[in-house]
This record gives sequence, structure tokens and C-alpha cells, in this order.
Amino acid sequence: METRINKFKSIVPKVGLLVALAAGTLLQSCNSSGKGEDANIKESAVAADAATAVYVAPGKHDELYSFLSGGFNGQVAVYGIPSGRLLKVIPVFSQFAENGYGYNEETRPMLMTSHGFVPWDDLHHPKLSRANGTTDGRWLFVNGNNTPRVARVDLTTFETVEMMEIPNSAGNHCSPYPTNNNEYVIAGTRFSVPLDMKGGTGDASLSEYKDKFRGSISFIKVDKEHGDMELDFQVLVPGFDYDLANGGKGPSGDWVFFTTYNSEKSGTLKELGASQNDRDYLAAINWKLAAQYAAEGKAHEMPANYYHNKMDHGTHRVNSTVKKKVRYLLPEECPGMMYLIPAPKSPHGIDVDPSGEYMVVNGKLASSLPVFSFTKMQKAIQNKDFDGEVNGIPVFKYESVLHAEVKEPGLGPLHTEFDGKGNAYSTMFVSSEVVKWSLEDFKVKDRIPVYYSPGHLMIPGGDTKEPYGKYLIAMNKVTKDRYLPTGPELLHSAQLIDISGDKMKLLLDFPTLAEPHYAQGIAANKIAPNSVKFFKLDQNKHPQAVKNEKDVSVTRQGRTVKVNMTSIRSHFTPDNIEGVQVGDTVIFHVTNLEQDWDVPHGFAIMGNNNAETLIMPGSTQSLRWVPKQEGVFPFYCTDFCSALHQEMQGYVRVSKRGSNVPIKFSTGVKKPAPPATAYIGK
Amino acid sequence: METRINKFKSIVPKVGLLVALAAGTLLQSCNSSGKGEDANIKESAVAADAATAVYVAPGKHDELYSFLSGGFNGQVAVYGIPSGRLLKVIPVFSQFAENGYGYNEETRPMLMTSHGFVPWDDLHHPKLSRANGTTDGRWLFVNGNNTPRVARVDLTTFETVEMMEIPNSAGNHCSPYPTNNNEYVIAGTRFSVPLDMKGGTGDASLSEYKDKFRGSISFIKVDKEHGDMELDFQVLVPGFDYDLANGGKGPSGDWVFFTTYNSEKSGTLKELGASQNDRDYLAAINWKLAAQYAAEGKAHEMPANYYHNKMDHGTHRVNSTVKKKVRYLLPEECPGMMYLIPAPKSPHGIDVDPSGEYMVVNGKLASSLPVFSFTKMQKAIQNKDFDGEVNGIPVFKYESVLHAEVKEPGLGPLHTEFDGKGNAYSTMFVSSEVVKWSLEDFKVKDRIPVYYSPGHLMIPGGDTKEPYGKYLIAMNKVTKDRYLPTGPELLHSAQLIDISGDKMKLLLDFPTLAEPHYAQGIAANKIAPNSVKFFKLDQNKHPQAVKNEKDVSVTRQGRTVKVNMTSIRSHFTPDNIEGVQVGDTVIFHVTNLEQDWDVPHGFAIMGNNNAETLIMPGSTQSLRWVPKQEGVFPFYCTDFCSALHQEMQGYVRVSKRGSNVPIKFSTGVKKPAPPATAYIGK
Repeated sequence: METRINKFKSIVPKVGLLVALAAGTLLQSCNSSGKGEDANIKESAVAADAATAVYVAPGKHDELYSFLSGGFNGQVAVYGIPSGRLLKVIPVFSQFAENGYGYNEETRPMLMTSHGFVPWDDLHHPKLSRANGTTDGRWLFVNGNNTPRVARVDLTTFETVEMMEIPNSAGNHCSPYPTNNNEYVIAGTRFSVPLDMKGGTGDASLSEYKDKFRGSISFIKVDKEHGDMELDFQVLVPGFDYDLANGGKGPSGDWVFFTTYNSEKSGTLKELGASQNDRDYLAAINWKLAAQYAAEGKAHEMPANYYHNKMDHGTHRVNSTVKKKVRYLLPEECPGMMYLIPAPKSPHGIDVDPSGEYMVVNGKLASSLPVFSFTKMQKAIQNKDFDGEVNGIPVFKYESVLHAEVKEPGLGPLHTEFDGKGNAYSTMFVSSEVVKWSLEDFKVKDRIPVYYSPGHLMIPGGDTKEPYGKYLIAMNKVTKDRYLPTGPELLHSAQLIDISGDKMKLLLDFPTLAEPHYAQGIAANKIAPNSVKFFKLDQNKHPQAVKNEKDVSVTRQGRTVKVNMTSIRSHFTPDNIEGVQVGDTVIFHVTNLEQDWDVPHGFAIMGNNNAETLIMPGSTQSLRWVPKQEGVFPFYCTDFCSALHQEMQGYVRVSKRGSNVPIKFSTGVKKPAPPATAYIGK
Repeated sequence: METRINKFKSIVPKVGLLVALAAGTLLQSCNSSGKGEDANIKESAVAADAATAVYVAPGKHDELYSFLSGGFNGQVAVYGIPSGRLLKVIPVFSQFAENGYGYNEETRPMLMTSHGFVPWDDLHHPKLSRANGTTDGRWLFVNGNNTPRVARVDLTTFETVEMMEIPNSAGNHCSPYPTNNNEYVIAGTRFSVPLDMKGGTGDASLSEYKDKFRGSISFIKVDKEHGDMELDFQVLVPGFDYDLANGGKGPSGDWVFFTTYNSEKSGTLKELGASQNDRDYLAAINWKLAAQYAAEGKAHEMPANYYHNKMDHGTHRVNSTVKKKVRYLLPEECPGMMYLIPAPKSPHGIDVDPSGEYMVVNGKLASSLPVFSFTKMQKAIQNKDFDGEVNGIPVFKYESVLHAEVKEPGLGPLHTEFDGKGNAYSTMFVSSEVVKWSLEDFKVKDRIPVYYSPGHLMIPGGDTKEPYGKYLIAMNKVTKDRYLPTGPELLHSAQLIDISGDKMKLLLDFPTLAEPHYAQGIAANKIAPNSVKFFKLDQNKHPQAVKNEKDVSVTRQGRTVKVNMTSIRSHFTPDNIEGVQVGDTVIFHVTNLEQDWDVPHGFAIMGNNNAETLIMPGSTQSLRWVPKQEGVFPFYCTDFCSALHQEMQGYVRVSKRGSNVPIKFSTGVKKPAPPATAYIGK
């Protein structure tokens, strides 16, 4: 009983203990009631424990934020842990009609690339910024896997504030990996392509794959104070596929590691063609040495053409610039910078333990998990324990760097994280389980089924030197019968597992938006205190901002009509506009005059071939509209803002082309102050 | 103690009882420990009760589906009740990059309107289809509030299968309301506009509002077997704003009721201008009589121009047709069809109780809730108890139809639903509470604070003759400090309240996507058994479908390249394509050959100015791509499908315009059967 209580204590302080005690008492008193019933009661007691462990009472806050990538939806989903409640969707790579992201004038440039406007991407890996090897809660870096890009989310506002295209890349999958103090965010290509040495891919036949295709690893510098990114240099690497990456820490902190597949360099039928060799490679790059080589003039330069889009914090406008060159290093010219470690074929995750000593390679087709030693790797470098080379890159002898193999972990190991208490946890995709094993004797200690086919797992901080070893989230690829059915298309699913005790305990299933490939978790107090509540109107530098209702304007310049307007509970100024003609381009610049938390207004006009836009207090957002018909078109506030929200509306009169109706607008009655707020709260 | 247990029993059978018992015992044994601690323990016990009441253990299913409108995101969110877990987002009016809805060739036509392609709308009110006055779980009807449209979701597949534009409307807010057997779905305009009598709005000055602006109510016929909609006729109504509607039931089943505001017909500053009169109106229309008038030749006809988009179930393609005329009735020509009831000014919800006798009007600025009697209304019609008329429509004397007034219900009443046990529940927007009152004595029985500013509430079936009176969901407009902060932009919030006992009990807060204006709830067993798991390949009639890998093709027709391809774990066929040129339009028609549940494949190609598309088993989806640069462009499966998902990729070679590289593609190795599935489950 005592042990049981202690275990529960660690889950949820008060309520958990209460229920645990209670359940325990009942179990004893019910012992006489027969085996079947007893089992039922036990099951109920376990369910009650789990229920209290994940329950966050109304008005209470979750213990942690978790950031789950949305995969093919191109967004980040923020879930509270342990409740599993979806707190927010952060639009990053995909248009988001909900708030106008990628539709309105301010944010549309965020999605500009060398291929033009790209309204979707496949967001795979969120990574929190780091200080001293731990997460600092300032920024979230994420990758665009399809059209190679890295984006940065500001965690004071939960907005995407920067996005950079990656040249010489195709499928930016093993990305983005921050070093221990964000010196670099590192991004590797998934697909190799025939580089045209102008930053793009060349026109080559797929039969020339082995000779002409090449990969690249990009090293992006991050400004210490503001987080701004710059592509410092690239390393051009052999024409493999690069899957996942992870940075070293402690003694291995200067290194970054990449799993590769298709070392066969097969250009077709990779399902078979990339699975012929028994071994692929784990690539190791000394990023500090690489940076030194680049600084010392070892870098070449080639023309390039890639977009770098940044939000201006004063105006909330995104500005695009096009970069025209990129520096690159060749491993064969940079001794000591890059090595290859033979690894089980077609590996997925590479994970470095909190001490920085062990590199775990998750070979999805392998029957064991090899654990490589950083100390041994250093010795092997000294001793030149090599077994040939690839493109001038030395290949270690497998045995010279191997520390241990975890035997029979399960089928289809994909990814491993750590609890900071000497244990590792690996997902088994094929046998649908999470397996806990020891970093001391490398033996399996526990296993728990998950439903079904887990890809990645996440322990908050489990990829840093300071894991928060209380919870584990398994991200499952197959959901099937786990929830009420919703037709052929189902959400994926996460499972929250308590890892605070010896045995893992399943607490909660929660469906997840699109496909979370990876996640990050962080204690709430690293983010919540810095959260911005609203934007200060006096710091709004948007050139079309209107800060006083008396200054609104409607002006025609050729075929463009510019409406500089305001919103405040519960009216727009102006609310009647005449003189617009069919085919005009009308741009509504709407400034939200509110100066309080959670009083957004929305703006939409009927029949627009565009979206609406939400305008946060103190900011200005702009919506473009090209009316196609004459008539009277209502506009209105789309976000219920007060008891008179339904009355917050206006009209634009559109006359036929060449009409003589002049531009006219009503500014209405002036009010000295906004009306009283319609909510009761803190 | 006995009462307490009985109350808990009704929440959750086994676990709830266990915890309730346990908590009760502990409360007694802890009585000696001082008042403060006692209060803490009570709070914990209440939390534990609520925790078990909402906890759905891993692998168990929720008791109910709830369908919450997404408001400004244009989608429907499906939440499980009581867990509050988001089970699914159904894209309806907005582009949805997650699965290609509104981007791919099949679904893009769903968003075509007379204004062109409209990629966003404001979805306010979901309404389940009905049989005999109760929900039947077949279809969900929803409204596009901004660009007037009504859409239908098929609940066997959770897909939007039909969408119809509404002519003569601007802001289709009081919509869509199904009659008791789906004879009609009824949609009223929110904004009145100057009708041009060609189905659109005319070019009129806003100063002519009072004379020229007019509203419309649309009566859409629904096919009994397939659900297909047709606009049967409209009723042209006075130039008010029409807010919400509700159908009668039982004795009042032939009637539908609408709240109106701005009966002042103010064209500007509605915040003030529409709040001048003490009374606006509740409009009552006898839809059966209206249908009879229309059938008997009382309807006029005018030209129109509106889109009707339907999915073809054999091909999964959406086809658009443009309708060219519309019939309409004028109330002044149709005696007995329409009446006006004076109501508190600027009312929001109109709600008819399960018996069909009481019509409750929620006057958001009023200090009491008037309850009108259908029996009295019938008598008033017989006795001609009128107090003048508007546009030929008789206005009842207030007293002649009023049954009771609920005194001091709270501030800002917005919406009311019913539990089927003689009680009504109303949201108070301004005083942030839900108020329970009696349909017998019309007195307030209980009130519970909600956080903050509730708009609508929902009791499953609470708008039908058979409410499921166990849960109530309050949909709150302001969230503020209720969850971990996420910057200036916050999700809205729902609160789940247990209404099974005398006193309401708050169980759970859960954030909700965008802004749920209204919701529907239904017992799981009315939908789950009919859920489709996958589409049958042999029923796939898509003209570009390929059902066998040997039949794939890549063909050039002028500047269009058509790729008819297949996907199956874990390869595309073909996976190498050459001969495409810069500026070609490439259309990938991808057929998913899988025939099992939850094995979608995704398809995306690098740098596409479009999205990806998900392809459900057995169906064909098509993605358009216009390459802008020469090079080699990888494509890949975006939905992790098997252990070799990362290998499920291919390349398209794009040469410069006029290149002589011929069309060439590899079909690769033929396999006799799909590889073994990679998951372990039912």
C-alpha cells in the first residue's frame, strides 16, 4: 500500500492521493466479492487514478505546454499537458482562413518562395530554442519538409515571425536542430538532387542519380537577442537520403549527427532499392570546426535564389527579401569535419542521451538498437580506425565506435528519448509499443502497448540535457477504432504515459490534428510569464494605421480604393462607403483600437475571393477585395465582441465601372470612450 | 449520503460511484482536521467526481458526438462528449490545406459561387437532419453566413457533399433550420439589401435604406432519400436584420420563427440606430401554407444566378451547376402565411420548447425573458388581435400572445435550450452565467457562472422534441485567463455542465477552435454504426482512376501532362517521370489502391503553388502543378503509412521549355499483393 501511494503522489498531489487512498481501501473491502468483480473494480480504480492524473479542473492551468507538429497540415498544435486539451493552432506554412494568415496583406508575403507563393507545407519537427543545453521558451523552430524552409515562432505572441527558404535542398526533413545555445539551427536535405550550383536543382535524368545527385546540410546562424536567422554556410554531402538529426551535448556539444538511408543511391523504387545494403550510415559533423573552416576561407560561394521573410514587429507586416548567394564547404577539403558511422539499414531517429556520451540509432528494419559511444568515436578518430571512405569522408569501423546493442527491443524501432534518470524510451512502429531500457546495462526494463504504430515519442526536454521525466507522449500513426468513428478520414492519436515510476502507466488517449511527427514539451512557467496580452496602440507603426476615429479615410488612387478604418466595440468607422466600382481593388486597413486582452475584432466583406482577417488589439491588418458585381455588400465583425456585436456592421456600395457616384463615407457619431466591456472576469 | 450517491450514479456508472463512495468516506474521516482543510478536501472530492465524469479511458468511446460550428474558421469541429476531445475537423466553407479540400481538382468546385471562387466563410449554425422531430444522424446542415450558402455534410463519411448559394441574401445568418422531417431547410438573410430582382443586390445609396432594402427567407427542399437540396421558393420580407430562427414542433410544427432587429431600418451606426425602438419583432411564418401558396401558383419568378455544387459519390468529384431563376412569395399576397409578434428590442435566440407550445425570445438588452404561447397565437389569429401591420403583415398585440415573462433571469440573455424534463436553460452574455428556469412556473431555479460571456449553449437534442437532458455545453466568447496563455490570440472556450440533477454542476473546460456559435449533440449510436470505413475500389467511377499498377500512364496533351498513377504501401507507380517542361500544367490523378480502414496516402510535390492532397482508400484525388523552374522535383507520401513510408517517394524531371526530353516514366517492379500492414489492432 505504501509503495502504491508514493507512486500516486508523484502524479497529482492532492486529488490523486485522495483517490488513490480511496481506491485502495475499496479494493481491500471488496476482496470477498469474487474474482471477476474484483478485476472490474481494479480496472475502475486504475481508470480513476488516471482520470485524476489528467484532469485539470476548470480555471486551473496545465502543467506543461506541448508543441506538436501538424505534419501535412503545415501548422503547429499546442496542447496542454496533462489534460491533452488543444490550446492553440499556430499557422506556419499553410494558409489559415481562421485568422487570415497567408491571405491578408501583412502575412501573405510570409509564404513567398523562389517557386512563387506556396500556400502549404509539411511541417515535421518543432524544436525549442536553447540556452545552456536546455529549452528556454523563447522561440520554436520548425521545418517545411516539402518546399525546403525553416520558420521561427515567437513564443511571446505565438506568431510565426520569420521564414527562410533553404537552397540546394529538396525535402528539408532532417531539420531544424538547434545547437545548445542556438549558435546554429541545422537543416539537412531529405532528398538528394542534381545541384545546378546556382542554388537550385539541375535538369538531369534520373538514370544519372549515382553520379549527379548530391545532398546538403545547412547551418543557419541565430541572433542571440532577437532570434533572427541567417544562412551562414552549407556542407555538400553524398547523394544519400538524410532522415533525422540530433545535436550532441556536454562533451559532444560541438557535433551534430544525421541518419542516412539510400546509401545505395537508388533513383527509383526506394522501397526496395534503398534497402539492399545491410548498413547505411550515421553521419557526424563537427559544426564548430565547420564554422571555423567557413570563417577561415575554406568556403566556396555559388549563386542562389532564396526567400527570407520576416515580420516587422512595429508594423506586423512581413517583408520578403531574396538572397542571391550561398557559401558551401566540401567535406573532402575539410579534414576532421565529417565522418560516417555504419548503422543498421534505413535508420530513422538518431538520439543523443542527456550526458552527451551515447548516440542511439533507431534502425527501423533492425532487430537491435545500436548505441554508439562518443568517447570511442574520439578515440577512433585519433587511431584512424577507418574502414574506407565515401566521397573523401572517412567511415569508422562499426566495432570501434559501438558501445552496446539493446537486444530485442521490439519490431520497427523509430525514435528514442530519455528521462534524465538513466532510462531511454523507444517507439516500436511495427510491434506498436513503447519500450523502456537502461542506459546502464542496456537491457529492456519495461514495455507498454500503444495504439497503434507509434512514430515519434516525446518526453519534455527529453532531447536536451535536462529532461522533465514525468510524462511521455507517444504519437501514433494509426487510430482506427480508438475513438468514435468519423468516416474514412481519422485523426491521428497521442497517448500520454506516466513515466515517473518503475512501470509505465497509460493515462490518456487524445486525438491530434493531422500528423504529429515530433513534439516538444516545456514547463508552463518558462513561457507563460512572458506571454504578450495585446499590442500597444502607441507602438503601432503600420503606415496605414488610424489611431483615432476622426482620422479615418477612404481615398481613390486610380483603380485602387484605400480604406483606412478603425474597429472598437461595437462599430467600424466608417460603416458606410460609396463610390466603389466593379473591378476596383479595395484594400481595407483595419486598426483595432482596443487596449485589453482578448478583444480581437474580425473583418469580412461578402463575396470576397479571399478570407477574413482577425485584428488583435492595437494592431492593423489589411484585406484586399476586388468586387465583381454591382450592389450593396455588407461587412461585419466576425469575432463576437460584445452584446452589440451583431450590430457591428456596415455596407460598401459598388456601382458599375465608370459610374459617377463619388467616394463618400460616413464616420458617424463620435464617442468619447469605448463602451463598457461585456464580460466579467479578472 | 444516499442522495449524493444517487446523484453521482447518474453521471458515470462504475468509476463515478466508486470515487463518490470513496470521497464520501474520506470526507467523514477528515472532519476533525479543521475548516480550511475540510474545504480543500471537499474541493478535491468535487474535482475527483468531475474528473471521473469526463474521463473516457483509453480505448473507450465517448457517449455523444457534438458538432460545434467553427464560426470564422468556416469549418465544423467534432468533439466527443463528455471527454471534450476534438475528434475531427470537417472542412466546409474554407480551404483546408490539411487534406487538400478547396485546393485539389475534385473539391475546388465546391467553393465556386456567383462571386467566383470564395475560399472562406463564416460558419455559424450546424443543424442535424430530423425524422419525426428528432435528430436522425444522417446529415448535418450548416450555413455560410458571409457569402450566403447552405452546405450539407454526409455523416456516413463526415464529408461536405453539397453546397448551395442563396440568392437575394446578404449574410445568411438565421440559417439553416430543418423542419421536423427535413421537408425544408430554412435560411433567412441577416442583412437586408436593395434587391435588383435578378437574384442579386442592386446599386442603391445607403441613404435609400428605408425605401429600397429588403430581406428574404429561403425554403430549401430536401430529398428524403439522398438529402439533396433544391431552393423551392423565397418569401420577400421587410428590410429588417434577421438574426436567428427556430422551427415549431408538435402543434406548432408547421411554423418557423425568426428574431429580427433593426426594425428601425437604420442604414448606419446600427449599434445605436438599431436600438432606438423599444420593441423589434419575432416573425412567424407558416411554412406549410407558404409551400401550398407556392404550389398553387402564388409565386412570382425572377432571374437569378447562383451556384449549386454537389459531390458525385461515384467519382468523388464536385460538379457545379448555375441556377438561373428563383420563385418568390410576397407576404401581402399570401394571407395567413406570416405574422409579427412584438418582442424585446434586438433579440438574439428564438427557441421553441419540446412540446411546441412555448416560444422563448432572448432579448439581449432586456431584463426579462418573454415566453409566447402558440395556443394564444392561434387564438389571436382567429380573433384578429392585431396592432397594425408592416408591409401588409399583421402585427399581434403583445399581450394577446404573451404567456409569461421570466423575471430577472440575468443580464444579456442570448439563447435558451431545454432538457425535456420541464426546464429551460438560458445563457446570459453580460452576467456570464447559465440560468435554469421552470416551464411550469417560469421562475429561476438555479444559476451557474460560466467563464466568460457565453453566446449559445447546447443540450443534445435540446432544440428538438426529444432532448438528451444530461449535459449542457456553454460556448463562451471570452477565454482570457482560463488556460495557459498563448499570446494575444486565444481560442474560445466551452464548458461542460452536468444537468442531470437539481443543481447544475460544472464538469470541464475545453478550448474550442475559432468561434463556435452554435452546436448540435447526438448519441453516438445514431451515427457510429453507419460510418463508412473506406471506399470500395470497384465502385470508383472516377474517369482517371487506375485500378491496377500495370495500367498507369503519363500522357501529354499540348501543354498539359496527365499522370494517372497509383499509391499503395509503400510506393507510387510510376515513381520516376521525365519529359515535363517548365510551364506545363501537370495533373496527378492518384488512386489509392488500399482496401482497409485508416490507410490513407498523401501526395505532394516540392514547390507546388497549391497544397497536398490526401487520398482515402479506394478513391482518386487529383493535384494540379505548374512547375516554374527546371530541375528534379521529389514527390512523396505525406501520411506515414508503413515502416517504409519514408521510402515512398519519386521524382519528376522538369526540363526547359521546348526541350526534346520525351515523356518517360518507370512503372517499376510488379508485386503480386500489397505488403503486410504495419499495425497491430482489431
